[in-house]
Parts: sequence; C-alpha cells; structure tokens
Amino acid sequence: MTKFDEATRAVRVDENTYDVCLDDGYSIGGPLNGGYLMAVVLRAVVDASPHEHPVSTSVQFLRSARPGPGQVRLQTVKSGRTATVTRATLISQDVPYLETLITTATLDPDAVPHYRESPATSLPPLDDCVKLPDPKPGSGITLGLQTDLRFDPPTIGWATGTPTRRPESRAYFRLAEPQDPDPYVLALAVDALPPVTFSAGLRGWAPTVELTWHLRALPAPGWLTVTAAGRLISDDWFDEDVEVHDSTGALVAQSRQLARVGRA
Amino acid sequence: MTKFDEATRAVRVDENTYDVCLDDGYSIGGPLNGGYLMAVVLRAVVDASPHEHPVSTSVQFLRSARPGPGQVRLQTVKSGRTATVTRATLISQDVPYLETLITTATLDPDAVPHYRESPATSLPPLDDCVKLPDPKPGSGITLGLQTDLRFDPPTIGWATGTPTRRPESRAYFRLAEPQDPDPYVLALAVDALPPVTFSAGLRGWAPTVELTWHLRALPAPGWLTVTAAGRLISDDWFDEDVEVHDSTGALVAQSRQLARVGRA
Repeated sequence: MTKFDEATRAVRVDENTYDVCLDDGYSIGGPLNGGYLMAVVLRAVVDASPHEHPVSTSVQFLRSARPGPGQVRLQTVKSGRTATVTRATLISQDVPYLETLITTATLDPDAVPHYRESPATSLPPLDDCVKLPDPKPGSGITLGLQTDLRFDPPTIGWATGTPTRRPESRAYFRLAEPQDPDPYVLALAVDALPPVTFSAGLRGWAPTVELTWHLRALPAPGWLTVTAAGRLISDDWFDEDVEVHDSTGALVAQSRQLARVGRA
Repeated sequence: MTKFDEATRAVRVDENTYDVCLDDGYSIGGPLNGGYLMAVVLRAVVDASPHEHPVSTSVQFLRSARPGPGQVRLQTVKSGRTATVTRATLISQDVPYLETLITTATLDPDAVPHYRESPATSLPPLDDCVKLPDPKPGSGITLGLQTDLRFDPPTIGWATGTPTRRPESRAYFRLAEPQDPDPYVLALAVDALPPVTFSAGLRGWAPTVELTWHLRALPAPGWLTVTAAGRLISDDWFDEDVEVHDSTGALVAQSRQLARVGRA
C-alpha cells in the first residue's frame, strides 16, 4: 500500500458510514488540499457502490478541513444498472466539511473514442519544465512533498514577480512515491496546482466554493499533464477549468471549480 | 407575471418545502427539459436563502420528469455571510427526479472584471442565423414554443443530413414571450440547445447525468448567445461545455454537463 493509498483509506463501519483519518501530509499551509479530501470521500463512495469508477463528482467545500479522524457518511440517492448516485458528506468532530454528489459507473478500459478534441493547450517537453522553489520552512505546506510537479515556466512567473497576467497554470504531475495514476490520484491532480489567480497577478489563498470533475477514461501509467485556465475574475469570484491528460495523450479528467479570490 | 415566471413558480409550504407545478410547455418529447427543471428548483432555493443569486448549481438527473404537481424539498447545508449552501431535491409523487447542491450568494451588478477572456467561439450576425424547422406534429416537443433560438447554420447541418462531425451547437437565445434574461432564464439557456452529439453525427435523446453551472454575472436585457462544444465522446459518455454571453458580450453563465449518448 502506498502512502497515498494509506492516507486516503476509508474503513467501512456500516453501509452508510466509513471511518477515515485526514493526513497531515496534504496540507496547503494549515487547511488540507481539496483534491486530497475528494479522494478520501471517493474511496468510501466507490467501496459502497456496485460500480467501479467515480465518473462524476460535485463538491461543495463548506469549511477548510484540518488533519485528524473523520467520517464519510453516505446516502444512496439512486442505484441503477448504468450508474449509482450517492450523496456523501465528509465530517470531522460532528462538523461537515465537504458535501458531495457522486455518480459511480463502470468505464470500459478498452473504449475507443468516437470523437476526441486535441488538448486546448500543450506543455513544453518535461525537461524544459521546472519545479517550484521549496516553500519556506514553517509554511505548513506539506502537499508538495507528496507530489512531483514540473511547471511550464511562464505559468510560475508569479513566484519571481513576473506573472503572465492571465489566469493559467500548467504542469506535469505525478505522485512523489512511485504509483501509477488511478481515479483517486486524478482527484488530487485536478486541484493540485496553485490557483490560476496567482498567474493573473493576485495573491492569497483562494478557497474553492464548488468543484465538479468528471473521470473520462482510466489513466495509463506515467506522468499526467494538468492544464488550468480561467475565463473570468470578477466580483471576487473566479473559475478554474482543468484538463488532465495521461501519458498517451488521452483526456482522463475534466474539472471546473468556482472559487473566491484570496485575501493577500 | 410572464408564462416562464408562472411555469417556474415555487410556493412556500414551510421553510423546507415548496409546491411546484411542472408545466407541459417545456417538454422535449415526453420528458421535461432539464434547464426548466433547474429553474423551478432555483426559485425555491433562492426564495428560502438570505442571498439573492444562485451562483453555483450542481444537479444529478435521476429520472426523466413529466408534467404535473411536485415539490422541492430543501435542506440548508451551511449558511454564511458570503454564501449559503442548500441541498434541494425535486420530487413528484414521492419519487425524486433531481438531486442538487446549490450555492447562493449576492453578486454585485456593478462589478468590473479584473480579468475576462474573449469568447472561445463567436456567432455570425443574428440575421445570418436560422431557426430549426418546426418539430413534427405529435412529437410532443413543446420547448421550442417557449424559446426563440437562431442557430449558427453549420451547427444544425445535422437536421438536413450534413452534420459538421464535431460536437458543437451555437445559437442566439431568448424567450418567445418578451422577457429580459435573469438567472432562471439562464438555467434554461444552459440546457436549451440540441445535444452536441447531433452535430457529431449521432442521434437519439441524450440523457444528462450531471450538470453544473455557474452564474458569473447578471445578464443585460436582449439576446443571449449560447455556445456549446464537447471534447470527448467515448464509451457512450460525452461532455457538453456551454458558455452564455449577454447582449453586451459579458460572460454570464458557464456550464458543463456529462451525458449519455442517445439511442437512436
């Protein structure tokens, strides 16, 4: 069992309840990363579902979550031949942190696309991409230790005072420990990059209000590419659209989140 | 009160229950249009919320709904200064049809965007766009009577046997009766076009599994433009991404749905 599998483990208590332990290795400076929290919830939902794959996950982030013991509470909304819809709530110390609606189904690993669009944006070769500088000691940002991100250099210009002035972020992504990507790793990937607002010249933690992502195919082994862009920053709200492609170039996940502009 | 306002009316029974009447004017050949159903749910949610606008709406479509009396049942998940999160379920004859999570907040009508992207696709002038042929008598498709859609001609080539072979659909949109767009009209707009699969050469009713849309600004009076595109059709699943701009060119709604390829 890898560290990520262990950190996202959900232990069945009864058909509607799973115990989890929110791991301090996925912190973004105090609060835990939203993608990590989604992965924890999905472990429970998929375990309880007759279907194998979380094809659609919608999450409302109610509060920022901290490490510690928690529970995932499930309610089956509808179960059918093609898909099961589950409401799942992530709770810690009787407080709900994530409210979710999740569709599970079983994808065909050998499906041949009827239509596929080329990626909207592409990344330079891996060797031309770069890591972010390590966070300052004491920042509490531990997520970076679990992940290996290699950024398209202009999209981290903000870190050295030269933001592109466009809401964008692009990187190669894999777990730091050797592990092939799976749907849970994709849940982490769709929310793993710094907010696109940084590149637009804004700073501060940008809390996600809502994030929906769809699993479009099972990822092949190897690096993932994660490309994020926003279309509108207004009234302290912004959108962040993410596409994840696997090492064969297949679109494996699509995500959009609505978030609040951070207070610097 | 316009016909649309009347058809989406939600009457408060108690703080968690609203009575609604699902109107046969929004049928797509038997089942009711998903955007119409969302508008009905949003009427109840906004009425019960301390906030004015449905900024984020995630819906799981459980079953196809038919006209008749129904109820919206609400549960406040979290209410804060900036936003309220509500779970709402649309029920008819004790059967749930839509399961939703909705964030309400209050948008500033005078907000000046910090950043805005130009529309990804544009439409020809209104006079160069065309209506779809009227549906066959007895088809039960009444939605077209309530809406006025003028299509970018290539994107309805499928109706005359010449699909573009790309998943796309683009049209000007307004209600047939004179009414300025508002957030409820936008809920209708994001799901009002024929499925993008038609243009990709596929036929048959394409049931939506999940749809999330975000209200990004309050729409100005006049025509809306609705542009829809998909990125992947595979394993009988497809995505449909919709952007709605108002008559001033402002992005007012963003939507993505995951749906099943129809059986012709």
